[in-house]
Amino acid sequence: MTALARHVLAEYYGCDPAILDDPDFLRPIIEEAVRAAGAEVIKTSLHQFKPQGVSGVVILAESHLAVHTWPEHGFAAVEIFTCGTEPEPEAGHRYLLEQLKPAYHTVRALERGDMDTIERINSGQAAAG
Amino acid sequence: MTALARHVLAEYYGCDPAILDDPDFLRPIIEEAVRAAGAEVIKTSLHQFKPQGVSGVVILAESHLAVHTWPEHGFAAVEIFTCGTEPEPEAGHRYLLEQLKPAYHTVRALERGDMDTIERINSGQAAAG
Repeated sequence: MTALARHVLAEYYGCDPAILDDPDFLRPIIEEAVRAAGAEVIKTSLHQFKPQGVSGVVILAESHLAVHTWPEHGFAAVEIFTCGTEPEPEAGHRYLLEQLKPAYHTVRALERGDMDTIERINSGQAAAG
Repeated sequence: MTALARHVLAEYYGCDPAILDDPDFLRPIIEEAVRAAGAEVIKTSLHQFKPQGVSGVVILAESHLAVHTWPEHGFAAVEIFTCGTEPEPEAGHRYLLEQLKPAYHTVRALERGDMDTIERINSGQAAAG
């Protein structure tokens, strides 16, 4: 299918718990991951949980990046969602791998928004109206 | 597998373009979707694009919710990511369906963070260290 956007979702296992619990370390890294993906930061929000864990979400000109960490498990869930053909969300994921150095990771790439379905639904609505 | 979190991803086709381009309409709806999912809003960020489109991202006590809209296509990409056993991300999706009334939608539910892998990697690291 021709998709409106791509969504890369990754699980990082066996990371250093200290860096996963440090928003000051994570903020520049997730913003740099956006640039590595060829995308543009619009707004970054980080939240530190008690007793531990950080959620970082960046609104991009091309959708979003999110990182959620569980320092108690050495685990982070990462995702980069980009629209358009220019950005490469996988490149952002590779940058985060270099920075967070998981002992093991998994990654999935999904397509979001099928252009054929958009055209079919929109033309059907026009015909019905 | 036993998962740390659940991630519901949905595509809404054939929505009213006017509401997809209205952040004042979308903000209370996405925050109410969080409550419908049994989750808690920590911080909401919305951005309106020019000439059109809105990105809304909510950091939750349980991870995040994101909505990206393409009014020119009548399309919205929706996701709700929640950790813990209490929240029901599908309930948030159902609330958004009622509000955004897509003519057609697709939905996927993914598990994020395999507890068995977390235990295997963390015990392996301990043995190696």
